[in-house]
Amino acid sequence: MPTIKILAERELRQIVPLDHAAVQCVEDAFHSLATKTVAMPPILRLDISDHRGEVDVKTAYVQGLDGFAVKISPGFFDNPKIGLPSTNGLIVLLSSQTGLLKALLLDNGYLTNVRTAAAGAVAAKYLARKDASVAAILGAGIQARLQLQALTLVRPIRQARIWARESAKAETLAWELSKEFDLHVTACAEPHEAVAGSHVIVTTTPANQPIFDSAWLEPGQHITVMGSDAEHKNELDPKAIVQADFYVADSLKQTRTLGELHHAISAGIVSPDARFPELGEIIAGTKTGRLNERQITIVDLTGTGIQDTAIAALAFKRAEASSVGSSFES
Amino acid sequence: MPTIKILAERELRQIVPLDHAAVQCVEDAFHSLATKTVAMPPILRLDISDHRGEVDVKTAYVQGLDGFAVKISPGFFDNPKIGLPSTNGLIVLLSSQTGLLKALLLDNGYLTNVRTAAAGAVAAKYLARKDASVAAILGAGIQARLQLQALTLVRPIRQARIWARESAKAETLAWELSKEFDLHVTACAEPHEAVAGSHVIVTTTPANQPIFDSAWLEPGQHITVMGSDAEHKNELDPKAIVQADFYVADSLKQTRTLGELHHAISAGIVSPDARFPELGEIIAGTKTGRLNERQITIVDLTGTGIQDTAIAALAFKRAEASSVGSSFES
Repeated sequence: MPTIKILAERELRQIVPLDHAAVQCVEDAFHSLATKTVAMPPILRLDISDHRGEVDVKTAYVQGLDGFAVKISPGFFDNPKIGLPSTNGLIVLLSSQTGLLKALLLDNGYLTNVRTAAAGAVAAKYLARKDASVAAILGAGIQARLQLQALTLVRPIRQARIWARESAKAETLAWELSKEFDLHVTACAEPHEAVAGSHVIVTTTPANQPIFDSAWLEPGQHITVMGSDAEHKNELDPKAIVQADFYVADSLKQTRTLGELHHAISAGIVSPDARFPELGEIIAGTKTGRLNERQITIVDLTGTGIQDTAIAALAFKRAEASSVGSSFES
Repeated sequence: MPTIKILAERELRQIVPLDHAAVQCVEDAFHSLATKTVAMPPILRLDISDHRGEVDVKTAYVQGLDGFAVKISPGFFDNPKIGLPSTNGLIVLLSSQTGLLKALLLDNGYLTNVRTAAAGAVAAKYLARKDASVAAILGAGIQARLQLQALTLVRPIRQARIWARESAKAETLAWELSKEFDLHVTACAEPHEAVAGSHVIVTTTPANQPIFDSAWLEPGQHITVMGSDAEHKNELDPKAIVQADFYVADSLKQTRTLGELHHAISAGIVSPDARFPELGEIIAGTKTGRLNERQITIVDLTGTGIQDTAIAALAFKRAEASSVGSSFES
């Protein structure tokens, strides 16, 4: 009977905060994706349209890691009407040597939030101007908050602007963030107002149509687009991809079918087999990123199984080291 | 904080034995597949060739069911060398309405064994001769044992023959089964010896090359082929598919890429878009099966996510009714 570890959300929040170590963990994951033997099959996707639900299952194996994660991420968009969060889920950690169950990370989506925000930090760390101090966040959900927090870990952010479709939400978030961080945070009525003059922009919405016009692009800007993790989602005007000096994918295989690149391909702006660098290649130094302070860079994040495997391995290691969690025999 | 139920293997063995109710549960699942709105995406498959490991993730949503399962099935084929079983895994049960985690079924593959054997019973119930009394089982693993047990639930089996590549294993299993059931069970040195004169044959091996020659087919025989659940696996001579009067798939979409049908298509014996009935259509009566006692029938089982959702729902219902299992807050 194998003994497994069960970690509850409150325990995972304690042992895996969004900090420099989490960013390093995700950075290492992307580095592995570019340099090691990695198996990362296409995402399994189940749609439950009767209840406006969708479930993604992601996994990745990295040679040399003891464990690999299988993450189950449900998103049920009518949940808020009954007082429940839209997104939930858990991560199952299995042994890479035997396939035996090692741990159940009952995070209700918390680790996904951390690894997603951490990827935003990694994108800015490698592509944004070093002196980027003004950030714009489009969206006012949990990722809006975490992406700004993540940016402060890698760039000297002093000022932030928040735009959201519902202006009351943007105002509340701006107020909360200015209290939480030592930042000047304001809410903007229009997305362009937030974007104009910003050095780093992160789009965090579930938009199905562009909320960012390519005409707004300014020299030196870096944009991380992280809302689009499914075919129908689209935050960025597809023309921006060819206008930018560098378009970088978290996984080119995924952004071609799920990300912003997918819409540029559909629109005939980009060839389906056009090559672009991946974030891991920039980190590993095998591809070049921003060369000067006037170039425009875009990172397209769809969310990869390797981030889940990396953050789950970190959580398990810390739980073992600090004897956090429950044991269960099965 | 949602409360979830955790069920251990020993508890699941108690509440979900391989019996008539389990067979009915899987029969209903196939019926649903043919008659209801079902979402059953392609299997997610991760290969960890460094450790001879493979992981399948299956899921299915059936309209009207409260829950849906995501099953994680690892198979690591070097495990027996270190005293561990090759196959393991767990089933995660989520709410169809909210996506919230309902239960973790830590079955170490037990429920997969039950639902797979139950599918063999359903196949024989609908396709084998009513008076089938002689069974041949090719293979001597856990499914060899369970498939024979499953056949006894639906047909008046009096005699069984076991063949396996390792004859010592076949002999041990034959001896054990003859003690466990009121049957005359013998081990055979050659597969043809087991097949000749049998009314129902079940192939349960991980073979990569046919172990069943189409020249052996006899009038009236029914063959359930259940070993092939991956592209490279192959138990049946592909010519058998066209020689049989009825070839039936558990899921035609799956058998075209994973099952025995896949090899017949690759060999150019069957057209890639040839239509064949599915087991659920035979159960629902929308397609015809065996018409007389001389016809030859084949059922190709690759294992479907809907079986997992059905058996997980049964386990959860019984656990709730009998207050079995542990509760966990996360």
